[in-house]
Amino acid sequence: MEKDVDHAGTAPLVLHGYWRSTASWRVRIALGLKGLGWETRPHDLRSGEQRHADYVSLNPQGYVPALEVAGAVLTQSMAIIEYLDEVYPEPALLPQDAVSRAQVRAFAQVVACDIHPIQNLKVLKMLKARGFDQQATDAWAAEVIETGLAACAELVRDCDGPYCFGDRVTLADVLLVPQLGNARRFGARFDFGRIPAIEQACNALPAFAAARPEMQADADG
Amino acid sequence: MEKDVDHAGTAPLVLHGYWRSTASWRVRIALGLKGLGWETRPHDLRSGEQRHADYVSLNPQGYVPALEVAGAVLTQSMAIIEYLDEVYPEPALLPQDAVSRAQVRAFAQVVACDIHPIQNLKVLKMLKARGFDQQATDAWAAEVIETGLAACAELVRDCDGPYCFGDRVTLADVLLVPQLGNARRFGARFDFGRIPAIEQACNALPAFAAARPEMQADADG
Repeated sequence: MEKDVDHAGTAPLVLHGYWRSTASWRVRIALGLKGLGWETRPHDLRSGEQRHADYVSLNPQGYVPALEVAGAVLTQSMAIIEYLDEVYPEPALLPQDAVSRAQVRAFAQVVACDIHPIQNLKVLKMLKARGFDQQATDAWAAEVIETGLAACAELVRDCDGPYCFGDRVTLADVLLVPQLGNARRFGARFDFGRIPAIEQACNALPAFAAARPEMQADADG
Repeated sequence: MEKDVDHAGTAPLVLHGYWRSTASWRVRIALGLKGLGWETRPHDLRSGEQRHADYVSLNPQGYVPALEVAGAVLTQSMAIIEYLDEVYPEPALLPQDAVSRAQVRAFAQVVACDIHPIQNLKVLKMLKARGFDQQATDAWAAEVIETGLAACAELVRDCDGPYCFGDRVTLADVLLVPQLGNARRFGARFDFGRIPAIEQACNALPAFAAARPEMQADADG
């Protein structure tokens, strides 16, 4: 595949995010694993900064994260991470063979499609607007997270190695670890199969440690 | 990237799906665009056939679609479609350059992460279990779909050509068209920008026409 090599590396990468945003957390991990430098532009989701006109002009959806690369604004965390993996191929976040790539992507998509969207702030706000109280929205989130993480555990049950799919960190680990942060936040179980051991192995790596929400400059507690 | 060429094409592709499943519909379109033959194994989601032991042994998550390739079962529709695009590269469903690939994937992920999971049957059942009636769940689904499709329209506003990103069908079109089926089902608006024209262009292609729910052998009206 053509890689725009002149383009990569000539302009600073600018990450629009929020310390507590799970999807921003994913991108921070990937940037760190690739050994890239980047500038951070925080947008406080609680006060709606992501809907300010100057940000919406960059990302019409008004969501974080977005990554500015020279001349383009990339959105959607998995698409951003696959971009980084194509333009900065080492260390690879996807295996070489097509079946293994599909299995790693499927695990990532259980998190990104089947868990996270159904328990994120936007949906919990929709529930609250319909009369759910805090306890009811927490229970909703916990149910979604537990069902999804149990499926994740099953997908990697027979794999060896410290990480989801063996000896190398993949896109699957990048998606899993922030989701476990949300599990804690909502009091969801996450002690399924190899999941806790995988988290421990990932968090021993500098890129994962530095990406944690509480390590971000805009974190407030 | 290594492509397991011996593997591809020696065994029949078997698609586990359901006529009305939007995610199965996506995979049918991709298989058709690639000119591949496949066998269909329908699982009636309304009677819970996807939770039968023989299917769960193939796909522990108990969701459709799943695609059997020689010696492996692939899950998650976007992962399956990227597999097909890697193993059967023509016609390509992603552009060549990294930024364009990221933009197509981002559009697909607006559908696959921000719209579909929040309005699918599983979530509507969770809402009904919490006292929502049919009218309330339809309104929930319509709100999610309209917000998401408006964002999709914005992402392709400045593109020319009959399809989302120009003269060639991409992953974005493969995700968009089934989502418009769900828009109709829930009475959601979808007359945003270029969206109706893109749908019309796609449905003029044989692969899109043959993939429609009502064209499937297990459709019951």
